[in-house]
Amino acid sequence: MNVRGQREVARRDLPARPRVLIVGGGFGGLYAAQSLRRAPVDVTLVDRRNFHLFQPLLYQVATGGLSPGDISSPIRRALRKQRNARVLLGEVVGLDISERRARLADGESLVYDTLVVATGGTHHYFGNDAWAARAPGLKTIEDATEIRRRILLAFERAEREPDPARRRALLQFVIVGAGPTGVELAGAICELARDTLRDDFRSVDPREARVLLVEGAERVLPGYPPDLSTKAKRSLECLGAEVRPGTLVAEMDDESVVLEAGGQRERMDTRCVLWAAGVRASSLAKVLEKQAGAALDRAGRVVVESDCSLPRHSEIFAIGDIASFCHGLQTPLPGVAPVAMQQGRYVARAIARRLSGKGGAPFCYRDRGRLATIGRRAAVADFGRVRFSGLAAWILWSVVHIFFLIEYENRVLVSIRWLWNYVTRNRGTRLITGERDGS
Amino acid sequence: MNVRGQREVARRDLPARPRVLIVGGGFGGLYAAQSLRRAPVDVTLVDRRNFHLFQPLLYQVATGGLSPGDISSPIRRALRKQRNARVLLGEVVGLDISERRARLADGESLVYDTLVVATGGTHHYFGNDAWAARAPGLKTIEDATEIRRRILLAFERAEREPDPARRRALLQFVIVGAGPTGVELAGAICELARDTLRDDFRSVDPREARVLLVEGAERVLPGYPPDLSTKAKRSLECLGAEVRPGTLVAEMDDESVVLEAGGQRERMDTRCVLWAAGVRASSLAKVLEKQAGAALDRAGRVVVESDCSLPRHSEIFAIGDIASFCHGLQTPLPGVAPVAMQQGRYVARAIARRLSGKGGAPFCYRDRGRLATIGRRAAVADFGRVRFSGLAAWILWSVVHIFFLIEYENRVLVSIRWLWNYVTRNRGTRLITGERDGS
Repeated sequence: MNVRGQREVARRDLPARPRVLIVGGGFGGLYAAQSLRRAPVDVTLVDRRNFHLFQPLLYQVATGGLSPGDISSPIRRALRKQRNARVLLGEVVGLDISERRARLADGESLVYDTLVVATGGTHHYFGNDAWAARAPGLKTIEDATEIRRRILLAFERAEREPDPARRRALLQFVIVGAGPTGVELAGAICELARDTLRDDFRSVDPREARVLLVEGAERVLPGYPPDLSTKAKRSLECLGAEVRPGTLVAEMDDESVVLEAGGQRERMDTRCVLWAAGVRASSLAKVLEKQAGAALDRAGRVVVESDCSLPRHSEIFAIGDIASFCHGLQTPLPGVAPVAMQQGRYVARAIARRLSGKGGAPFCYRDRGRLATIGRRAAVADFGRVRFSGLAAWILWSVVHIFFLIEYENRVLVSIRWLWNYVTRNRGTRLITGERDGS
Repeated sequence: MNVRGQREVARRDLPARPRVLIVGGGFGGLYAAQSLRRAPVDVTLVDRRNFHLFQPLLYQVATGGLSPGDISSPIRRALRKQRNARVLLGEVVGLDISERRARLADGESLVYDTLVVATGGTHHYFGNDAWAARAPGLKTIEDATEIRRRILLAFERAEREPDPARRRALLQFVIVGAGPTGVELAGAICELARDTLRDDFRSVDPREARVLLVEGAERVLPGYPPDLSTKAKRSLECLGAEVRPGTLVAEMDDESVVLEAGGQRERMDTRCVLWAAGVRASSLAKVLEKQAGAALDRAGRVVVESDCSLPRHSEIFAIGDIASFCHGLQTPLPGVAPVAMQQGRYVARAIARRLSGKGGAPFCYRDRGRLATIGRRAAVADFGRVRFSGLAAWILWSVVHIFFLIEYENRVLVSIRWLWNYVTRNRGTRLITGERDGS
């Protein structure tokens, strides 16, 4: 079926240009599309959402510091002036590798010459899928507003709860997973309780809130060097969070979690559990396994060649969180934005080079370092031999995150909101929206 | 049942102060609570949402110009420093007038000495309640994001629709009701199609979109003087909207509306109908009718005395959109923000005066004029003998609306967003969120 309209009819008389289909408008897909702007190809970017989401700041939406619109940009806007690119709203649910077609959820299909799969990842509950409803993860705007709703509702309910035990349970927050997202969430909830909401309630003192950060590994930020983990732990404890490394979640129901550490089990009453523990590849990875014979790693990610293409299918690339890239590395590249951005740019160059008949060098990740924030004036920075924490790391973190926002407007707005939040300790977007529940 | 916690125990030894219960945190309720800050009373403000919503700018959220957080402020934040006020999240569903209790949805009840009902209004489909799902109205943040979703999805679907007739139906927007909200929506959708989205699509030209504004009365903005109605109509037509006064909606299904004018019926294919036609009082009005014997007017609003109290129940006040105030007037006061604000302040003064044994003057609305915007540099202003339109009215409209935003932060952010939108003709918050539907 043809999804093109009248305006494209004229082009049909021209010699057909290679069709590049990019699935996913995250960091990988968007950077790939933009980097193809001068290539003699027709680019189609298809995403089930109409906006690019700046995921590294999603935790700030979940804790009322930023609005969804501040960290989202319409994909169409980003590719508006790129005449060789078009954007389609749709969900790719299947592939026909032999015919080079991608099938959309509504039954239509898109033909490609080169396919770039950049659909990212989703939450991973390690087999306990029933926990998904009890402990939401943080991947989408809807996840973020749902988490915001739960956090703020907990304080609202505590204000009206006369029973001290139930009030304690309402103000007990449990965050599972102490990677960057878990650490950021824990720090932000502590600040919300201690600073932002301090004078807002009459019957309950928000500072009574307890934030527990549970991590299966032996330290927080397990991907970082141990000395930075120690500093991050200390910063979290300064903010009032309790950190429990070497601890797993064994059970979960609507009123409590059971934690397990060293063979000991402990039940903890809580009404708000947030999941920051696991990520697995999006469902297209399984399609690639079945259709293209791709190998998947433990997290369900597609194992790619050194040029990010699939073995035996050089016309298919997988980049970003859906790909497992381990050439010359001890562990696969981590699922972070810089990897996806660089792979997006690399794949665009590789496609252009192939068209001009040239070969190319394998993908090589330039690790420019890592940053994780804990809270006001607290962050850790890891640049290999140079490592630091505290105010300097926090300022660097803020600058870098503003710089990488796609739209200039958002950079201005986020800067102002942050300045404002910093000075007033307010978080202006504390809206309880969605499912209305005043009880 | 007592909903107060430990920190209030100490206060019980003090002589009890009169309890003022305010239901609703809109303009009426919030201004009443704030104006009671120096009165010797205990104020409780209960609302089913945790934020005050600046409704006059809701249409900008619905058309992607502003974020929900830009026009919302946590009610707790607004009353944070007012030590005689507390805020509860809850929905009042019933009253026990003889015992002076308000019953909440979760079964608890709140005792009052004075009750201020300020719960506003909701959509009015004039008996056709089945239309609610087909033609959403614009009262809440969820309404606004749902309307935004429908408008943006229409363009996305048109981009993928090869059939010209279906594409025309997708790009046919029908707005029912040409009061200020209808006019603002119509103007904003025209600008979205003509300016903002102009370069965003490849198969469809967004300027093909048709916006039809249907009004039962003989002219747009029926509440305004006829010369301003004429100017507003001309401005709308300049933007590309089609205006049909004297026209009613007779039928509606998922694919079309049937319009009726002068006995003639016409079916029009459309996938996006928005409702800006009618407002009726919120459900507490019926409770006041049943329990306190209040009289309701045609729109279901509670007819109040000249001091905004209920006949035979001087301890109950009704203000804002739920009240029908017509003392010395030909028609009841309109359901606009300035009326609610002034009534809120008036009622607070009346409560304080009663406590000091003084009588008071009846409420008198000071009409400071009306403003309605149509689009970029187009608005109408009505100050009785002074009336004007165009750029001057538009600038005045912008200044007034920024000035009345509750939070200073929001004033700064909205100013910047507007400046940005004005210069770039962009609307940054064009997110399709909520129900995910990529088809």
